Amino acid sequence: MTFSSQNKAQTAAAVVAKSAMKGDQMNRQQNKPIKKDESIVSAYMSQSYISASVGDSIAHVKSNLINKIEGEQIPTYVFVVDQNNYLNGILSVKSLLTAADNLFVSDIMRHNYFSVAPDQSRHEVNDLINNSGIDMIPVVQFGKIVGVLRPQDISDLIEDENTLDAQLQGATTPLDEPYLETSPWTLWRKRVVWLLMLFVAEAYTGTVLKAFEDQLEAAISLAFFIPLLIGTGGNSGTQITSTLVRAMALGEVSLKNVGAVLRKEVSTSVLVAVTIGGAALIRAWVLGVGMEVTIVVSLTIVAITMWSAIVSSIIPMVLQRMKIDPAVVSAPFIATLIDGTGLIIYFEIAQQVMTEFA
Amino acid sequence: MTFSSQNKAQTAAAVVAKSAMKGDQMNRQQNKPIKKDESIVSAYMSQSYISASVGDSIAHVKSNLINKIEGEQIPTYVFVVDQNNYLNGILSVKSLLTAADNLFVSDIMRHNYFSVAPDQSRHEVNDLINNSGIDMIPVVQFGKIVGVLRPQDISDLIEDENTLDAQLQGATTPLDEPYLETSPWTLWRKRVVWLLMLFVAEAYTGTVLKAFEDQLEAAISLAFFIPLLIGTGGNSGTQITSTLVRAMALGEVSLKNVGAVLRKEVSTSVLVAVTIGGAALIRAWVLGVGMEVTIVVSLTIVAITMWSAIVSSIIPMVLQRMKIDPAVVSAPFIATLIDGTGLIIYFEIAQQVMTEFA
Repeated sequence: MTFSSQNKAQTAAAVVAKSAMKGDQMNRQQNKPIKKDESIVSAYMSQSYISASVGDSIAHVKSNLINKIEGEQIPTYVFVVDQNNYLNGILSVKSLLTAADNLFVSDIMRHNYFSVAPDQSRHEVNDLINNSGIDMIPVVQFGKIVGVLRPQDISDLIEDENTLDAQLQGATTPLDEPYLETSPWTLWRKRVVWLLMLFVAEAYTGTVLKAFEDQLEAAISLAFFIPLLIGTGGNSGTQITSTLVRAMALGEVSLKNVGAVLRKEVSTSVLVAVTIGGAALIRAWVLGVGMEVTIVVSLTIVAITMWSAIVSSIIPMVLQRMKIDPAVVSAPFIATLIDGTGLIIYFEIAQQVMTEFA
Repeated sequence: MTFSSQNKAQTAAAVVAKSAMKGDQMNRQQNKPIKKDESIVSAYMSQSYISASVGDSIAHVKSNLINKIEGEQIPTYVFVVDQNNYLNGILSVKSLLTAADNLFVSDIMRHNYFSVAPDQSRHEVNDLINNSGIDMIPVVQFGKIVGVLRPQDISDLIEDENTLDAQLQGATTPLDEPYLETSPWTLWRKRVVWLLMLFVAEAYTGTVLKAFEDQLEAAISLAFFIPLLIGTGGNSGTQITSTLVRAMALGEVSLKNVGAVLRKEVSTSVLVAVTIGGAALIRAWVLGVGMEVTIVVSLTIVAITMWSAIVSSIIPMVLQRMKIDPAVVSAPFIATLIDGTGLIIYFEIAQQVMTEFA
């Protein structure tokens, strides 16, 4: 009698989605207008899983599994639940297929398993599952199973997180629809906030240049190198942040490595500064701007490259510590930061060198 | 007799890797010094697959499958090969589990399947399998199976391609080792080529500014807006390329959409230009540089934003057409391109407006 009642519970609990994988995927796409919050797990989970009861016989679960599989992929786990959908454990399909038919679920089920919560952030789950090899994860709330992440769901989640990072790196916001279906108004909305923020931050460069107006008038050739100097500072910083942001996304680097990162990046920037400093010397000499300006330009590029390395090494880690996605440190972000401070470095060096020679 | 001989072939062909998934993965990492070419499929494929012969009985293949499964994941396919490892077809494990024991492989095998070649580029395969839901792919050369891509192999491949794109976007080259194990010399080598290329391209801005020296001396306040104008042009272009590069990586956009993309981006850039043009007007007015320069700055930002939109929409698609990974169009690349041309636009507009007012 116990067995029969559990069997009934099992049948009731055998939740299997109506839609095949692809269909389910499309469904999620079409559901977009309902504004699922794609930043949390529940937007990615599916109801397409196979469950069993503790008291079920292996023979029963096996035949149930074979009848319920959708698509071609064989699920890695069957989930062991009670009448109220409380998750008691998991059963690997491999152990199910190899187990004798006369055993019971309780004989081979596992009580230790990795699970996530439906309101857990996509960013956090992405970090947890990245490279773990886990391909099926139960989504559990108050002990009850509320869905699963299947391999396709997990790859959707990772892809969306990668897309967010890629878009943040370009100082814009990911689109909700495919690009070709997105209207110019929507594109404008996704971009203009970032662009205005960067504009306001960059506007500071005007103030800096105005402050050094006299010096600029005295040696107008200093102006020739403004784009080259600040551009190179931004580029060398961008190289660092993009490497660090990726290493942090892969879990290789975190704030506790800040010392190692700084040592590595400062050492590297010395090598880079010497190389680019030499190139700057040649460039200034070719433009024929005189020895003073040539010296100023070469010294400045060394100073800006090193300054940029320090800023670019520290900021992504500080942001992660502040629970801000370090991917926001885009090339435009670094460029904007280096432009204003780089100009101050440039004109301070110019002031020193010019006074020296005067 | 035929059956027995095929059975033997089957046993010989039942290639199963010695290493578990994780082990194999680590193996690939440790193999790094041997310099596997990670840009092609063979660097990612595994020998860990289960095979069968056309004449095998279902009962035999089933028991073979259960004995040979490694790890917890159940493979989606068994590969049907002959004595010489020629791939005759595939057998879905689902159909295997549901088929009657007295049937034969030939009764349920499929002759249509997706396969890749060992020397096919990672980039191309990434495009083919992205979002396809395919999780196990035979790697075939001259009709023979030489390996398979398992789910974990496929996600490694996609991740490496994403890492390459992310690093190219930062104008640097992906690292071969984890970040913390990479020496400053290696970092320098990975970065300096890109940086010097950008430096040389950017050096052109000096030539442009020198050419407009007289104008700059006549109105020194024009110099105040150089970083702001070219910075904003670069930023708005970067937003476009990062959205397009991502959409192209996801297969949403290709060269055949160039008309639609241009229409969309030019429309969007009109909206962006008006917004930023207003901001520029306010900024120039606040700096108190006089009406002429204020007008020049506002007109220039409108012109640069639209110029940047056209350049940034077309370049990624032209590169894809030229079989160059569009991800090379990084923020530094766009910034460098817009800096020189943007300055020409700026001083040409200045020349027109100043003459008008003079």
